[in-house]
Amino acid sequence: MPAVDKLLLEEALQDSPQTRSLLSVFEEDAGTLTDYTNQLLQAMQRVYGAQNEMCLATQQLSRQLLAYEKQNFALGKGDEEVISTLHYFSKVVDELNVLHTELAKQLADTMVLPIVQFREKDLTEVSTLKDLFGLASNEHDLSMAKYSRLPKKKENEKAKAEVVKEVAAARRKQHLSSLQYYCALNALQHRKRAAMMEPMLGFAHGQINFFKKGAEMFSQSMDSFLSSVADMVQSLHVAEA
Amino acid sequence: MPAVDKLLLEEALQDSPQTRSLLSVFEEDAGTLTDYTNQLLQAMQRVYGAQNEMCLATQQLSRQLLAYEKQNFALGKGDEEVISTLHYFSKVVDELNVLHTELAKQLADTMVLPIVQFREKDLTEVSTLKDLFGLASNEHDLSMAKYSRLPKKKENEKAKAEVVKEVAAARRKQHLSSLQYYCALNALQHRKRAAMMEPMLGFAHGQINFFKKGAEMFSQSMDSFLSSVADMVQSLHVAEA
Repeated sequence: MPAVDKLLLEEALQDSPQTRSLLSVFEEDAGTLTDYTNQLLQAMQRVYGAQNEMCLATQQLSRQLLAYEKQNFALGKGDEEVISTLHYFSKVVDELNVLHTELAKQLADTMVLPIVQFREKDLTEVSTLKDLFGLASNEHDLSMAKYSRLPKKKENEKAKAEVVKEVAAARRKQHLSSLQYYCALNALQHRKRAAMMEPMLGFAHGQINFFKKGAEMFSQSMDSFLSSVADMVQSLHVAEA
Repeated sequence: MPAVDKLLLEEALQDSPQTRSLLSVFEEDAGTLTDYTNQLLQAMQRVYGAQNEMCLATQQLSRQLLAYEKQNFALGKGDEEVISTLHYFSKVVDELNVLHTELAKQLADTMVLPIVQFREKDLTEVSTLKDLFGLASNEHDLSMAKYSRLPKKKENEKAKAEVVKEVAAARRKQHLSSLQYYCALNALQHRKRAAMMEPMLGFAHGQINFFKKGAEMFSQSMDSFLSSVADMVQSLHVAEA
């Protein structure tokens, strides 16, 4: 991968218009990235939510299949085969539920969590440091204005010295906050690409695992059960006719 | 499967207490079955709903992955690899979406539809015929009461003949509606077992197909892509450090 653009820390003290202009480019990029990340996170959380709902839905279905036996049907004679068939299906749904639950957990840990962390850590850090840098710049501007309003008379030497000290302190503070802000913006450029790809790696690995186990689960052994149920259903339909 | 209990149509005309008692057993069974079917349908619709939501969620995720390219990042230099990786992931999610959509359709057609039809056709028919039978029985009771209130005097022969005709008509109507009602209750006993098992056959076949195709989709060819992405992410992390 090519090297990314970088804010040079040694330019921070001088704070030239060129540096400010480059800074605004980094800020625009960070803003776009924040919007995009929020939308991506929303889409990923929707996938996770659907996966989670599938866990709950299969749980409910499994319980409902077992509940047939407990209905106390007034005419339950001959229901043994239905009961045992629905029990078996309930077990199948339970096993499927295990796979869905595992996938939901994987999606939470390896897809949603990394992008949440990227947002909470990297993007939030940039936005916090932007605010601090803004405050420090304002303070610096204010102390500079105070300095420029000083009367030129000699008797004000003491007051002047005070203001000069204030300006120096404000400049140090602004310099420090700009260093931190530049570092965070540079780091964001380095991290953003991994941050965009990593969650989808988690997604894909989760799916691979899910399909592998699912294909094993629904193996030939289930085929013979299903065809015997199909025969049973067929014979019931014939009896109806 | 053992033969099911049956309401004998030849008993319908006599309408004896024994027949009424057996009828009430069939009615209780139909009531339990209606409640259970509604709960089972609800559980199945929840699974279908979750599956459908997964279709929509994967659609949104795929679109969001493609949208990275269109963000006009101020610092987009060197994004080519991220863009092509997210494109590939978007294609993977699209293919997964096709499988989810197919499964949702299968669940709708072979799980939800049969149980909806059982409810709309068989259970609703029983409940409608029960109402009609109740109405006809009431009419018959009313005409019988009228008959018993007739004065015994001879001059009322003509009025009496009218009421006798009315009673006979009401009895025929009641007999006919009881025959239809008994038939529907008997048919329900025949159909209920197939109706309980058939949707789960649809469910299982849908899942088998889904996992088979999914396992094929996430084959070795994807493994090499995923490990190259993992390497890329790893090298980006190293560059950060």
